[in-house]
Amino acid sequence: MSYETIETERDGAVLIIRLNRPDRLNAYTTQMCEDLISAYDAADADNDVKAIVVTGNGRAFCAGADLESGGKTFDRTDRDWHRDSGGVLNLRTFECSKPVIAAINGPAVGVGATMTLPMDIRVASETLKMGFVFARRGIVADGCASWFLPRVVGISQALEWTLSGRVFGPEEAVKSGLVRSVHPADEVLPAALELAREITENTSAVSATLNRQMMWRALGADHPMEAHRVESWALHFAGASADAREGVESFLAKRPPNYPGRVPADLPPDYPWWPDREFKPL
Amino acid sequence: MSYETIETERDGAVLIIRLNRPDRLNAYTTQMCEDLISAYDAADADNDVKAIVVTGNGRAFCAGADLESGGKTFDRTDRDWHRDSGGVLNLRTFECSKPVIAAINGPAVGVGATMTLPMDIRVASETLKMGFVFARRGIVADGCASWFLPRVVGISQALEWTLSGRVFGPEEAVKSGLVRSVHPADEVLPAALELAREITENTSAVSATLNRQMMWRALGADHPMEAHRVESWALHFAGASADAREGVESFLAKRPPNYPGRVPADLPPDYPWWPDREFKPL
Amino acid sequence: MSYETIETERDGAVLIIRLNRPDRLNAYTTQMCEDLISAYDAADADNDVKAIVVTGNGRAFCAGADLESGGKTFDRTDRDWHRDSGGVLNLRTFECSKPVIAAINGPAVGVGATMTLPMDIRVASETLKMGFVFARRGIVADGCASWFLPRVVGISQALEWTLSGRVFGPEEAVKSGLVRSVHPADEVLPAALELAREITENTSAVSATLNRQMMWRALGADHPMEAHRVESWALHFAGASADAREGVESFLAKRPPNYPGRVPADLPPDYPWWPDREFKPL
Repeated sequence: MSYETIETERDGAVLIIRLNRPDRLNAYTTQMCEDLISAYDAADADNDVKAIVVTGNGRAFCAGADLESGGKTFDRTDRDWHRDSGGVLNLRTFECSKPVIAAINGPAVGVGATMTLPMDIRVASETLKMGFVFARRGIVADGCASWFLPRVVGISQALEWTLSGRVFGPEEAVKSGLVRSVHPADEVLPAALELAREITENTSAVSATLNRQMMWRALGADHPMEAHRVESWALHFAGASADAREGVESFLAKRPPNYPGRVPADLPPDYPWWPDREFKPL
Repeated sequence: MSYETIETERDGAVLIIRLNRPDRLNAYTTQMCEDLISAYDAADADNDVKAIVVTGNGRAFCAGADLESGGKTFDRTDRDWHRDSGGVLNLRTFECSKPVIAAINGPAVGVGATMTLPMDIRVASETLKMGFVFARRGIVADGCASWFLPRVVGISQALEWTLSGRVFGPEEAVKSGLVRSVHPADEVLPAALELAREITENTSAVSATLNRQMMWRALGADHPMEAHRVESWALHFAGASADAREGVESFLAKRPPNYPGRVPADLPPDYPWWPDREFKPL
Repeated sequence: MSYETIETERDGAVLIIRLNRPDRLNAYTTQMCEDLISAYDAADADNDVKAIVVTGNGRAFCAGADLESGGKTFDRTDRDWHRDSGGVLNLRTFECSKPVIAAINGPAVGVGATMTLPMDIRVASETLKMGFVFARRGIVADGCASWFLPRVVGISQALEWTLSGRVFGPEEAVKSGLVRSVHPADEVLPAALELAREITENTSAVSATLNRQMMWRALGADHPMEAHRVESWALHFAGASADAREGVESFLAKRPPNYPGRVPADLPPDYPWWPDREFKPL
């Protein structure tokens, strides 16, 4: 497939998505939102894709919203209702059935930072500059960051970053747990691909999908019983699958596994188990 | 304004609140609860206050509940119903529309520790002794600490501190994320004021208010869609504001911003967006 | 009492539970689930038990589900409905009224790792190998891990471990906050007992019970008001108790406390304050 603002590429079972507006430091536009959602849709529907890596072309990951409209950039009063585009994107990432890894190859600011929050793992460049700078532009956090960020780094760190809006570097990103590891700029994508392959080569794709969604969903559950209901259902399905047989038998034989299960073809019939959440204005 | 148990002072756009019972190590009383709530009310209503710093006079921050009644200190059976005073205070801090920074200048124990949990950022003295000592007094955690503490430091650390009731020092406070940084005793307030000024001088006051409440509220939300609804509403309002124009234009011009928006005068008409929570006995 | 798969032993006010299938590296069976639940039931009902330590006999803590059935291990399609055994166990641990400390004396893999998550504190051996390996066996996380793990170590670390299924060592376990401290193998149980005694010798047993449940329950609460209701109720009860009098008086007299309160005999009449959660299949 071909997109206007991104490029996609396959590396084995891994889909690489590249933000591709390098002359604008991959600044975010509504077209980029649509392109990314289309790419996630295609990846989720493709039985041969087992993980996704998102990175940026050029020296930046994403410099945030494109400010070429100047002071009017964030003015949406011409429309009846403004639904935050970063939130639309991040709700889609949240729904993704394949693991998503952010390879943050350089500056990631504003929506360029928040778009990585519903991804599962983040690795970053030594050249990282990250900032939840919204309050320094007179606006507020986007991309459901008020839900995701405190769950990734804790409420105190989340508040300090969003209240001050300051830009921080790779050390702080690692220390807070926002980023898993830091690498020279040209080794960020290879590091992300290595993590992706550790998943795709050693684990069942169906397991990854179920684990990913079970964990993100249970983040909002008010009691472990809710997790128990889903886990019981998922274990009943997965435990009887060819993947479970292969997983145990390959382990006991001390040989690499070869899981037959594909996503979405071999997901349980009741997947997804959660009801849709429709957007309603406040 | 004048208070019985606290002092207030203005430093530019920052309101400094000083716990002021130094001969009792600023031990907490119901009068102090009332005084702090009055001070927060005044700060929230004052368009010229953009941040709040809370500290203690003398060598302690707050030694906890005043124990001058001895073994009967916590006995409230003379009343029909006891509503925890620390919780009343912390629910008010939680509602605060201005960023709140704790400058913990010395020991902070019991309610002296829990009263800092709904504050946004904590900095502390090298002389810090902190303890969630309730179980060592035969009582239980107060100030909604059972809600706040696990969200600030994680459930395991929260359990270890409250089950043992032990007092710990500044290193452990920083390592756990409870405290952002540690300073010599006489540099704690200056450090807090510097953090406060980083917020007041670089960011929109309206943005800070919306971000603060969006993030604390989303901590309890069961799905990112709830954050998306609020963020979409807040972005629609803020994006069309003079602050957003100033934020982007000053950024593009590489000059310091000068935001016209004031809190509460320029908050969106639907603020606060959340319904009241009335207290009902268990 | 005597059990088939575990041993119990008293050390003062501490009950030690030892997983006891050392020739199988204490691999988990449904009998072990039943034995552990029985041991928790007995401990909760025993006024003389003030804390629980769980450890393993032999060189492992628990190697996970017993795989002696090979590829059919996780196949439960012979039953109408499969309710995850690890979840049944962990919901019981979650309900426990006494503090529970895991003394992880060696490898803890799969359900051997997840069974420690609803315990309050984890200490581990230098020989620790830990892994949420489910996806490497073609199944999914059990034991309500999708609820517990992100709350113990944060969502990013939880996702990385469960998506990759990889085994990690003691350093990573400590750094993530999963484990409090690491010790030579033969010092793990002593370290756990020392932590247990710090609780049993210095704190009120009733306080420990109330704090433990208040904190685990508030993890799922959507607003601090829910914590405030419970804390107000608990403070009203505990504040008027003989334990509160002893706690304050011993503190003021600078002598060790001697709390008369016992669990369950002296718990408040309305304990537990929460309604039951019945299991319903998804």
